[in-house]
Amino acid sequence: MYKILKKDGKAKRAEFTTVHGTIQTPVFMNVGTAAAIKGAVATTDLREIGTQVELSNTYHLHVRPGDEVVKKMGGLHKFMNWDRPILTDSGGFQVFSLAGLRKIKEEGVYFQSHIDGRKIFMGPEESMQIQSNLASTIAMAFDECPSSVASREYVQASVDRTTRWLRRCRTEMDRLNQKEDTINRHQLLFGINQGAVYEDIRIAHAREIADMDLDGYAVGGLAVGESHEEMYRILDAVVPCLPEEKPTYLMGVGTPANILEAVDRGVDFFDCVYPSRNGRHGHVYTNQGKLNLFNAKFELDSRPIEEGCQCPACRNYSRAYIRHLLKAKEMLGMRLCVLHNLYFYNKMMEEIREAIEQGTYQDYKKQKLEGFL
Amino acid sequence: MYKILKKDGKAKRAEFTTVHGTIQTPVFMNVGTAAAIKGAVATTDLREIGTQVELSNTYHLHVRPGDEVVKKMGGLHKFMNWDRPILTDSGGFQVFSLAGLRKIKEEGVYFQSHIDGRKIFMGPEESMQIQSNLASTIAMAFDECPSSVASREYVQASVDRTTRWLRRCRTEMDRLNQKEDTINRHQLLFGINQGAVYEDIRIAHAREIADMDLDGYAVGGLAVGESHEEMYRILDAVVPCLPEEKPTYLMGVGTPANILEAVDRGVDFFDCVYPSRNGRHGHVYTNQGKLNLFNAKFELDSRPIEEGCQCPACRNYSRAYIRHLLKAKEMLGMRLCVLHNLYFYNKMMEEIREAIEQGTYQDYKKQKLEGFL
Ligand SMILES: [Zn+2]
Ligand SMILES: [Zn+2]
Repeated sequence: MYKILKKDGKAKRAEFTTVHGTIQTPVFMNVGTAAAIKGAVATTDLREIGTQVELSNTYHLHVRPGDEVVKKMGGLHKFMNWDRPILTDSGGFQVFSLAGLRKIKEEGVYFQSHIDGRKIFMGPEESMQIQSNLASTIAMAFDECPSSVASREYVQASVDRTTRWLRRCRTEMDRLNQKEDTINRHQLLFGINQGAVYEDIRIAHAREIADMDLDGYAVGGLAVGESHEEMYRILDAVVPCLPEEKPTYLMGVGTPANILEAVDRGVDFFDCVYPSRNGRHGHVYTNQGKLNLFNAKFELDSRPIEEGCQCPACRNYSRAYIRHLLKAKEMLGMRLCVLHNLYFYNKMMEEIREAIEQGTYQDYKKQKLEGFL
Repeated sequence: MYKILKKDGKAKRAEFTTVHGTIQTPVFMNVGTAAAIKGAVATTDLREIGTQVELSNTYHLHVRPGDEVVKKMGGLHKFMNWDRPILTDSGGFQVFSLAGLRKIKEEGVYFQSHIDGRKIFMGPEESMQIQSNLASTIAMAFDECPSSVASREYVQASVDRTTRWLRRCRTEMDRLNQKEDTINRHQLLFGINQGAVYEDIRIAHAREIADMDLDGYAVGGLAVGESHEEMYRILDAVVPCLPEEKPTYLMGVGTPANILEAVDRGVDFFDCVYPSRNGRHGHVYTNQGKLNLFNAKFELDSRPIEEGCQCPACRNYSRAYIRHLLKAKEMLGMRLCVLHNLYFYNKMMEEIREAIEQGTYQDYKKQKLEGFL
């Protein structure tokens, strides 16, 4: 299913074949939290901006509209009208960051919905059941993401529990994938490496989960407050301990520069809310750095956000027009900025793939990073 | 420029040729107040939903981004990337309904911006200058729209002033259309009939402005609080006093039923914020009446908003999905509802044109109205 086509240093250029089509990596997954990309972007738009994988959030869909509703509607693909790969996270991260009062036990987590306060329990089995109802292409294992400032003792105990949870996830997923009424009986499972900023804990954990022969491996719990240098140091230590012949996913990361550095360390799956969130605030990416379109200097700027960009915003509208829309609080302004930003990320991944294929990744990365300065 | 192709009773099927292309009437103009249709709808979308004429608001664009900015950007067509006809209103209606403290004098109106409170003066000449800067296809004359409950005495004085203002508008537009640096030197001018609910005042006014040989005539000051029956009574009285061989525009109207009735009385231009405003609230039009997509009964409804509808929302998404988006406050939900509603209106106008061509307008109208009950 996962085939490395080319390596350039540690950077991997691969293909990952799924029941919903083949993913070309390195890939940036476009985040559609509640089964929609924020900023009025539809799945019909995603085809135009080079999206390969859509990512939705298990926790959000569990509380609204409810994973049972999505299952009755035929699964997320049918619900959203998207026939290409979808990755769902486990819900763990949102339970720990969004939900109200919560209690972590061996069986799972008790917490309150951030929507209506009702009590919910989610453990490894529940997370797998919800993701099976959603019928995503790739399900993520249920884990705890400890704070980047948690004590060594806390992190070790948490990681041990996350490993036990991972075994339960795999058992439950195997069971669900064999059920008659499961929508996607080929659902894949990625395990998640944790361990905060403790290299030795992360390495021991990576080796342990690597032995479980899962469909892919993620590095979780980064970009949660530690410095970029710390993140790169951990990737340097951990990625070599994960199976090279499996997809390597760095969760929730990050800036274009973060992605360029992580690809160089062997990572090939990414996701992040930055392009859509920044777009909604009028902050747009270019190869010369980010622009804030609210800035007065764009008032009469007839150029597109980025010259030569083939996104639906740049092919049709000027900075001046988009600036006006943002100032007038017209939703269209946000939509155009989000479309451009996602296109920018997706296009950068395409360039990254080409550079690895041609063995010029170091030059490409250096040149790209210089532009951002 | 305006050519009646067919009449069916009083209903007119016509063509109106402008420098930005030919308009097939009866036509519903799609309202993009601040140079954008609310609900994240772009001019590139308008081509897909059958829009012929985009309508923007002079007052809004004057206060933001400023008509001088739009002129420097090459006019509204270039600013919005829309090469088909645009109609701009005069700003009068918004000055009277939105602006803060105001004072009406013979020369025009002194008022405060609803954005920043700054003092602005707008008279006939200013309105024409702003609309010339915007470079719309059709400019509307600057008028006062008296309240539907204003006294007969007030309305008579107001209408007399509106007539004097109209002469000043025509003189100023003639002057502007001859200037070297005017972007659209073929800008057209429509006069506006006023007179509240006083038939005799309206008729006398209609006859007076009819003699001025303008490019088109609007009936203003309706749908501002009077009953539908009162509106139809006034149309019955006034439309026959306006030149049949010119476009007849009923401003700010209205529901599908209002449009069907007004077409039957000889009106052929319409505009209204209902389809976009209702769409943003999840209220969508169908041939069996309006649906409120927030309603729980749509939770598992896999049908499109309307079976057979060829709009971008109905071709791709279910009621259940759009309901979820609306409940989750995803902007995409609003966008899809607005696209459907505008398509519904534009499509109805197409059906109206066909029915008039085939001389079956009465049957069509009856059948359509029955569906809405
Ligand atoms: Zn772009
Ligand atoms: Zn539709």
